Amino acid sequence: MATAKRATTKGLEALFLDGLKDVYYAEKKILKALPKMAKGAESEEVAAAFEKHRVETEGQVDRLEQVFELMDKPARGKTCPAIDGILEEGSEILDEYKGDPALDAGLVGAAQAVEHYEIARYGTLVAWAEQLGKSDIVKLLKDTLKEEVATDEALSGLGEGGVNERALEQAA
Amino acid sequence: MATAKRATTKGLEALFLDGLKDVYYAEKKILKALPKMAKGAESEEVAAAFEKHRVETEGQVDRLEQVFELMDKPARGKTCPAIDGILEEGSEILDEYKGDPALDAGLVGAAQAVEHYEIARYGTLVAWAEQLGKSDIVKLLKDTLKEEVATDEALSGLGEGGVNERALEQAA
Repeated sequence: MATAKRATTKGLEALFLDGLKDVYYAEKKILKALPKMAKGAESEEVAAAFEKHRVETEGQVDRLEQVFELMDKPARGKTCPAIDGILEEGSEILDEYKGDPALDAGLVGAAQAVEHYEIARYGTLVAWAEQLGKSDIVKLLKDTLKEEVATDEALSGLGEGGVNERALEQAA
Repeated sequence: MATAKRATTKGLEALFLDGLKDVYYAEKKILKALPKMAKGAESEEVAAAFEKHRVETEGQVDRLEQVFELMDKPARGKTCPAIDGILEEGSEILDEYKGDPALDAGLVGAAQAVEHYEIARYGTLVAWAEQLGKSDIVKLLKDTLKEEVATDEALSGLGEGGVNERALEQAA
């Protein structure tokens, strides 16, 4: 395979940088989406979870800027159709379930899709940074990965701890 | 909040059905994307992993059709911008890294984004089906969820088990 060699080889470092730009764009879009989701949420606890994650996301953007600096590259985003699509589905829930007892359950589900996207991307970036031997970057990315996993678990807890039940009871 | 009540209440069952249609559309798109990813992959092992998951995905589509039947609803998809965006990023990797040593590492990362999207959606659907008291549906969805988690882990194993290293060595 690959008999016709490309003129330039990109390699793992280029792939890592592309992934970094993708997740930097994603975090900034998430930062804008979270206040809308918090404002739209029916219950205080769901709104508070989104606000908490908004503050956390600010720190995650900071960490990504540190990673760009350690790579000696300007912090720049690259349009990420994946997060655009995932957030669009969250907006649909806000529109279609406004005033509905299932709204919060839908918002929690939408937020978990966001978290899992980030878990996938940071997981991959950690593995690539390890392969590139960049241990300082690995540490920064792992700190964010841990936060995303904890946020996803907290959202599951919210869903199972009352949000899904309320969606059911009030609909009856 | 929600002082102005909507004329109709959708509730958790409607939300569950919307989620089912979303993931049904997603699985069908993934089924079409996997052969392209397998064909594009540089190494036999990555191509084989995609082919294995394609066969598995056929079974997952079958399970979703069983779930629709148990809900007494026709099996219908609903456009899911999230999976469209995620798969678009996979296509970008195929285009931009064609012939590059980092291609397979990029494809594995793209596939893990797909898996995590599915893990998020099936996880939510399982929780909602449990809340709805539909234990036969819970079992079907859990079977698929387990497969998605196992696929994600297998992809991590591929990345760390040589794919990422080859991306680095050949680029040097």
